[in-house]
Amino acid sequence: MTETLHVEGKIIETRVFTLNLKSTKAPEFIDITDQIANLINESKIQNGFVVVFSKHTTAAIKINENEPLLLKDMEEFLERFASRNHYYRHNDFTIRTVNMTEDECPNGQAHFQHLLLGTSETIPITNGAMPIGQWQRIFMVELDRPRSRQVLVQIIGV
Amino acid sequence: MTETLHVEGKIIETRVFTLNLKSTKAPEFIDITDQIANLINESKIQNGFVVVFSKHTTAAIKINENEPLLLKDMEEFLERFASRNHYYRHNDFTIRTVNMTEDECPNGQAHFQHLLLGTSETIPITNGAMPIGQWQRIFMVELDRPRSRQVLVQIIGV
Amino acid sequence: MTETLHVEGKIIETRVFTLNLKSTKAPEFIDITDQIANLINESKIQNGFVVVFSKHTTAAIKINENEPLLLKDMEEFLERFASRNHYYRHNDFTIRTVNMTEDECPNGQAHFQHLLLGTSETIPITNGAMPIGQWQRIFMVELDRPRSRQVLVQIIGV
Repeated sequence: MTETLHVEGKIIETRVFTLNLKSTKAPEFIDITDQIANLINESKIQNGFVVVFSKHTTAAIKINENEPLLLKDMEEFLERFASRNHYYRHNDFTIRTVNMTEDECPNGQAHFQHLLLGTSETIPITNGAMPIGQWQRIFMVELDRPRSRQVLVQIIGV
Repeated sequence: MTETLHVEGKIIETRVFTLNLKSTKAPEFIDITDQIANLINESKIQNGFVVVFSKHTTAAIKINENEPLLLKDMEEFLERFASRNHYYRHNDFTIRTVNMTEDECPNGQAHFQHLLLGTSETIPITNGAMPIGQWQRIFMVELDRPRSRQVLVQIIGV
Repeated sequence: MTETLHVEGKIIETRVFTLNLKSTKAPEFIDITDQIANLINESKIQNGFVVVFSKHTTAAIKINENEPLLLKDMEEFLERFASRNHYYRHNDFTIRTVNMTEDECPNGQAHFQHLLLGTSETIPITNGAMPIGQWQRIFMVELDRPRSRQVLVQIIGV
């Protein structure tokens, strides 16, 4: 164990940004690392943390490696894990009555995949940047269909 | 990208509440969104974040949609993912010697499901409320059996 | 619901430590709870939270029970969930060109398992300690192979 940082001082800033994203397919891993790094850079916050939070139940936030073949593997894996072709009561509009919208589309598989992946990631900020590993990239993962999406980026620190 | 909030000021309050819950079956999705929203409201904390943390290894915290048929789908899915009927060494009281309690019940499946779901969620607070999406609801997910459960709700902010 | 803590005061300290760990196999659950508890104790931070963050895309952070048979069950489960023997494009060095290193090893299964487990855990600190449940232990989970690993432990609070 080594101590890499020790800051005493008021945590004085909270900033929240909204990333507006457009997905083109599902599943789709969209790399948002650079956008988050730029926001941290612009905020001038040196030490603290960032919460990256999806506002959706069928689009997830996840950290993994951005290697194109791996992303293709993982997109297939998610489809195998919870296939569009399975039966979901949530997709059965002959029996479902709750949370039905005008343009309701069957997306049970996306909710299952989201249960696996999760809604947010919390990442430390030290010396004005995220001290993430060489291969770590932050993704918004579209699970439903091509859609407009919103991701909150909350930066808190000194 | 749009900036939706920029607060400068001391983060001066940390409040921790304990929700005492009773589950009635497993798996069971128990919606605790309103209780958390009420605590944030009462705390008068305007900007910061909330950590919702399960004190258990067989009860998870997760955000998804509260649509009754979907919850039924997901309860079945968790049972398929890790069935009560599988063999788990953890359930084999002829060989297990560690962490055995008076009323030990077989719950290997619940630990597996918990590995998939997770222990906590971190959610931003802006302008006195959680800026969550239309369909996002926060659940404690019982995975073991009908039990008394404790969920920590930590609110930190200005 | 009961309020267990209410602190007003500046959040004045941010400390970041790096745990250097060595895994001996994969999957392997390495219990780092005591090391984190010691860091919190030494930091003298009384109220706040700790972010435990893996710097790797094939080593995860997860909370579960430290019962040896259960860990063995879960190690087998991860291998079943995403087996080393499956085909992954990421492992196919006849077609892969991106992020190739000198000592590249096939580890597609580790990325899949990491997608299931996750990169970090956020845990409250109250009265100088983590108010975790009786069976909760924090693990770094090696998914790749015996390696040197780094885990960030960020402690923020009063």
